[in-house]
Amino acid sequence: MQYYLDGFRAGDPDLKEAAPCRRAYSDFAPLPEKVDVLIAGCGPAGLCLAAQLSQFPEIDVMIVERKPGPMEKGQADGVNTRTMEMFQAFGFGEKVKRESYWVNQTAFWTPDPERPAHIRRIGRVQDVADDSSEMPHTLINQARIHELFLDVMRKSPKRLEPDYGWSVKDLTVDATTQDHPVTVTLENTGVNLGATHTVRANYVVGCDGARSNVRKAIGGTLHGDAAHQAWGVMDILANTDFPDIRQKCIVASEAEGNMLILPREGGYLFRMYVELDKLNPDERVAARNLTSEHMIAAANRIMKPYSLDVKEVVWWSVYEIGHSMTDRFDDIPEEQKETRNPRVFTAGDACHTHSPKAGQGMNVSMQDSFNLGWKLAHVFRKQADPNILHSYSAERRAEAKRLVDTDHKWARIMSAPPGESDLDGADMPRIQKQFIENLEFTGGLAVHYAPSALVGPDTHQALARGQIVGKRFHSAPVVRFSDAMQMQLGHVAEADGRWRIYAFAGAGDNIAKSSEIYKLADWLEKNPSSPVVRYTRADEDIDSLIDFRAIFQQTFDALAYDEMPSLLRPAKGRYGLHDHEKVFCADHKGAGDIFDMRGLDRERGCMVVVRPDQYVAHVLPLNGYAELSTFFAGFLRPV
Amino acid sequence: MQYYLDGFRAGDPDLKEAAPCRRAYSDFAPLPEKVDVLIAGCGPAGLCLAAQLSQFPEIDVMIVERKPGPMEKGQADGVNTRTMEMFQAFGFGEKVKRESYWVNQTAFWTPDPERPAHIRRIGRVQDVADDSSEMPHTLINQARIHELFLDVMRKSPKRLEPDYGWSVKDLTVDATTQDHPVTVTLENTGVNLGATHTVRANYVVGCDGARSNVRKAIGGTLHGDAAHQAWGVMDILANTDFPDIRQKCIVASEAEGNMLILPREGGYLFRMYVELDKLNPDERVAARNLTSEHMIAAANRIMKPYSLDVKEVVWWSVYEIGHSMTDRFDDIPEEQKETRNPRVFTAGDACHTHSPKAGQGMNVSMQDSFNLGWKLAHVFRKQADPNILHSYSAERRAEAKRLVDTDHKWARIMSAPPGESDLDGADMPRIQKQFIENLEFTGGLAVHYAPSALVGPDTHQALARGQIVGKRFHSAPVVRFSDAMQMQLGHVAEADGRWRIYAFAGAGDNIAKSSEIYKLADWLEKNPSSPVVRYTRADEDIDSLIDFRAIFQQTFDALAYDEMPSLLRPAKGRYGLHDHEKVFCADHKGAGDIFDMRGLDRERGCMVVVRPDQYVAHVLPLNGYAELSTFFAGFLRPV
Ligand SMILES: Cc1cc2nc3c(=O)[nH]c(=O)nc-3n(C[C@H](O)[C@H](O)[C@H](O)COP(=O)(O)OP(=O)(O)OC[C@H]3O[C@@H](n4cnc5c(N)ncnc54)[C@H](O)[C@@H]3O)c2cc1C
Ligand SMILES: Cc1cc2nc3c(=O)[nH]c(=O)nc-3n(C[C@H](O)[C@H](O)[C@H](O)COP(=O)(O)OP(=O)(O)OC[C@H]3O[C@@H](n4cnc5c(N)ncnc54)[C@H](O)[C@@H]3O)c2cc1C
Repeated sequence: MQYYLDGFRAGDPDLKEAAPCRRAYSDFAPLPEKVDVLIAGCGPAGLCLAAQLSQFPEIDVMIVERKPGPMEKGQADGVNTRTMEMFQAFGFGEKVKRESYWVNQTAFWTPDPERPAHIRRIGRVQDVADDSSEMPHTLINQARIHELFLDVMRKSPKRLEPDYGWSVKDLTVDATTQDHPVTVTLENTGVNLGATHTVRANYVVGCDGARSNVRKAIGGTLHGDAAHQAWGVMDILANTDFPDIRQKCIVASEAEGNMLILPREGGYLFRMYVELDKLNPDERVAARNLTSEHMIAAANRIMKPYSLDVKEVVWWSVYEIGHSMTDRFDDIPEEQKETRNPRVFTAGDACHTHSPKAGQGMNVSMQDSFNLGWKLAHVFRKQADPNILHSYSAERRAEAKRLVDTDHKWARIMSAPPGESDLDGADMPRIQKQFIENLEFTGGLAVHYAPSALVGPDTHQALARGQIVGKRFHSAPVVRFSDAMQMQLGHVAEADGRWRIYAFAGAGDNIAKSSEIYKLADWLEKNPSSPVVRYTRADEDIDSLIDFRAIFQQTFDALAYDEMPSLLRPAKGRYGLHDHEKVFCADHKGAGDIFDMRGLDRERGCMVVVRPDQYVAHVLPLNGYAELSTFFAGFLRPV
Repeated sequence: MQYYLDGFRAGDPDLKEAAPCRRAYSDFAPLPEKVDVLIAGCGPAGLCLAAQLSQFPEIDVMIVERKPGPMEKGQADGVNTRTMEMFQAFGFGEKVKRESYWVNQTAFWTPDPERPAHIRRIGRVQDVADDSSEMPHTLINQARIHELFLDVMRKSPKRLEPDYGWSVKDLTVDATTQDHPVTVTLENTGVNLGATHTVRANYVVGCDGARSNVRKAIGGTLHGDAAHQAWGVMDILANTDFPDIRQKCIVASEAEGNMLILPREGGYLFRMYVELDKLNPDERVAARNLTSEHMIAAANRIMKPYSLDVKEVVWWSVYEIGHSMTDRFDDIPEEQKETRNPRVFTAGDACHTHSPKAGQGMNVSMQDSFNLGWKLAHVFRKQADPNILHSYSAERRAEAKRLVDTDHKWARIMSAPPGESDLDGADMPRIQKQFIENLEFTGGLAVHYAPSALVGPDTHQALARGQIVGKRFHSAPVVRFSDAMQMQLGHVAEADGRWRIYAFAGAGDNIAKSSEIYKLADWLEKNPSSPVVRYTRADEDIDSLIDFRAIFQQTFDALAYDEMPSLLRPAKGRYGLHDHEKVFCADHKGAGDIFDMRGLDRERGCMVVVRPDQYVAHVLPLNGYAELSTFFAGFLRPV
């Protein structure tokens, strides 16, 4: 964690220096008339986007929420490893690690063949495969995640706060102007119930959930299907003699339906998803008047011979399984893509919903807006052409589609009668096999963006077999050269809208002037066709858009600082202080060798270009100067 | 981290439920007339004590500070591994790990024999020996440590805040009463300058630094010696061509003196200790009018051929080396020990001072008051006889003495001319050899309390060769049985004033009713002579004073919950919820086996009794019931 670059400041290092022009959030201060980005909804999608954009003092963000204040409990609770990696970049990964439940194992329970009315454990699976991510899979209530994002916003240069009690009622886009073309009507839901206020925005992002008004305003409709199966979910404080109560469990009873147990933060709380009634094709779940009492009774039937003694129902909800998504995640119809850039977007549940049990809803929603955030920032900072905004819908819709498909399959297996879901000849129940197959997916690690202006071709993939172009950058252990700090390379990436180029040195590279790393660093810093030279503003630090780092095969004590090219010890900030955190070495403490772990070509080395949202954009040879220039020229704007 | 035991509460889990009767801290609220404990001084010693005591709603604590508000910068910055372990117990270990500089390596620089006016690196030492502690040695400014303690206080049941702008002027102890026998005169140092207020306290702890008024009031005088050597210290933002600037360096020049470099939090800041002038025997350093300019000039001379380009001097100070301590750390003279219990204590710099360069001042001060805190809590909660308070001075004075002696030796070596401190025949410079020898000591790990009522004899030490009676409990990796969580066993210990008994199972113990662990747990829970039965109040949780945990040699999947004795799944809190975090297994993920790592007798197993301040109080066989009873009977009071 780097701070004090522009001088010492006492106190919490996460509290960023306040921007000079900030909105006043006092009770009687008027709402703004114009903003750069208006975000509808303080769910995971909206807050993740607001937290991201609040890092850029030049962007005026407003985030409105229909409810009177922050959420306190309920809804989603699964944070997959990919999202944890993102939280790390936002600076609260450690906090979540400390407070949350870690899903280390998932246990499978099915009817005991000897006594089919009783369940018994049939298998156990390590939930996060070794080295699939350096972060754990965690469970913690959605409200706490909201708070952590709110905290990032509050400590940002703009000290951003949500406007609670305002709902986006409608919006229109004026295609004839580029100056705040979106007009949004807000309606008060609080003390001034029904009062309206009009805001003009350059961009609007609808993170307003499944009943999204923003989606409706841009003509989006959710298509999908329902499984006509009612499920209940409850967060409870309870005692039980069920032995695996602090492990994630998937339970299939013989005749009483299925159940999912999710232990939660704090050591006592846990969640249960309980299968309730089959619905008729045209029936809505609400009609059944199901309550937490029904769920507790059903759980007790399913988990026989064990039982549940509930002390406090913290939260509960009943829902029916369904999947749906919209045709596009922005306001531009297919046929206008060439001529117009999007002004309005939807993210999260506003454009795709799925069964909650795969634990994807919150994760995918945040990943949506994390994908969009840096692109908007690039546009506002005039670093990129606004047409990159088309890539949001293209990239995220393909992922949502994949999610709905997988989720669909999984939901059917989860609701299948035990005969089908149990051992089908093999030594492992079908549900367990499917669960293992799904792990990369449920971890959020299967996301794979197709080649585009923002994702290069995989021509040189062989140079970095474990860093797949289009997938997330896969961290591995390194040791920082300057201070011998053992760490994860991926953790140098902050949610700061910057690109990263990791240059992995070839065999024997000792950073002499003739070495490939030296030449690359020198070219990047000085050559007129280098993206660093072309796209970095003169008044900003040299790493403000493209952050160059080098990783050597030697251990830290075998390198010398004297020879480093200046881009690897750049002078930054108002004092021109040297940044000593650009060079890394192979781990010497037994954590593993990054070159081996990630299939990096030891002989030739390579460059891995990583997007601000942590996805691998390109793999190139160390001398792939022309290809590197071409790639960035595809979407960045020269200064 | 366990929470929600008494029901779900939204928000930050570190924010404890507020106690019903709390002091109001509004601007015009009067100061209290009576308190249980009055702490003088908001330095590390005072804040650590206040943070500890604030966990107990039944204790009324007041902490006064002469200065008008919290410290912003300067003074100490070294947090040794032992203190980091304590921070972990206070809940902010991760925070410090994230924000601080980690001392991974220390480099040694001495004159180059070929060009003696130039320095060159002669050696490097890994700063924290492998497995000496699971925590790193860190550097971070003292003010930030203050804030983290203040945060713990603020979030405690009492929402404790310091009273700034009040100085302890004097105090008297009335030996004839047990009801608030200490009368303290406070003097205002702020807007009501000179105004006084009288408070009566049951106990007063002088954490009021080297010029302590509390010490003076109880007749303590600092004895010591001075080395007549001026040193400067400065925290700076600077550039340099010195290659090891982000490693801790000990630099000896040929003729310009010695210097110490300490990189600091945030990646840019660093501290330099620079040797300045030799002083005459009767001269005070203040007379020399030395400033940061002198330090910078001296540093540039010492570090030739490298140089320093200072951009911002954040803080600086000039001091002379000296060591001193008082004869006792409480108000009871030797000859009255049998007849009176202490009412007034001093801690930290108030009773011992030393050269800052060994980085011990802040650490030892906090360890002082951490030693005292739980003893005071035991007395207030009527769990122990007040005579245990004598042990504070006995234990901490012996440690302070050891510190002064080691520090003394080290300061001379650091100030020795390079001829002497350099290679003396061996292949390693003397200073490096001494540094390595000192590592256990500077890490704070050499503290070893002598046998007493609170530290048992080492009769059974052979059962746990790596958990030395009288030294701190040495953590090691385990896996929690209930949820397969890989963790450090030592991290179950919170700064909550509780004792811990770790029962390490012997070979083949499968928790059957006939097993040693089962029998021990059963005896502890039910036998009238068990300390759990004798000393735990009926209205409190069964683990509220003595927290029993068991560690098995099997991996988590080889144990079954059904057979656990109830003390290992106790019902707690207002709902009687089961606590699932009492049982641990050997690590199965390659982190190491705790039995091997800590020399635990695999055949017989053993019990390790650990004090609330994390020191090993006893090692016993699993059936050492009588010895266990006797030990606790030595100082605890039956309910
Ligand atoms: C009742 C419920 C139970 C759920 N249970 C689970 C579960 O058990 N497991 C699971 O994984 N997922 C569950 N989910 C889904 C999960 O919470 C979502 O997938 C996730 O929150 C999506 O995030 P989002 O930001 O897209 O939308 P949301 O979290 O829905 O956030 C949308 C926000 O926008 C606000 N809003 C709506 N309309 C407007 C408007 N016009 N103007 C301003 N603000 C508006 C809403 O009040 C809300 O705060 C549940 C969702 C709900 C609603
Ligand atoms: C100027 C200075 C520089 C230092 N530099 C270093 C360094 O470079 N490296 C290092 O390791 N250590 C350094 N130290 C020492 C280190 O800070 C101390 O060892 C450590 O702070 C001791 O903690 P303490 O709580 O015992 O006392 P202190 O930190 O001294 O705290 C005592 C507190 O009590 C207050 N106080 C004093 N008298 C009264 C009174 N009568 N009533 C109420 N409050 C009172 C003081 O204002 C102060 O806040 C330095 C100390 C000082 C003073």
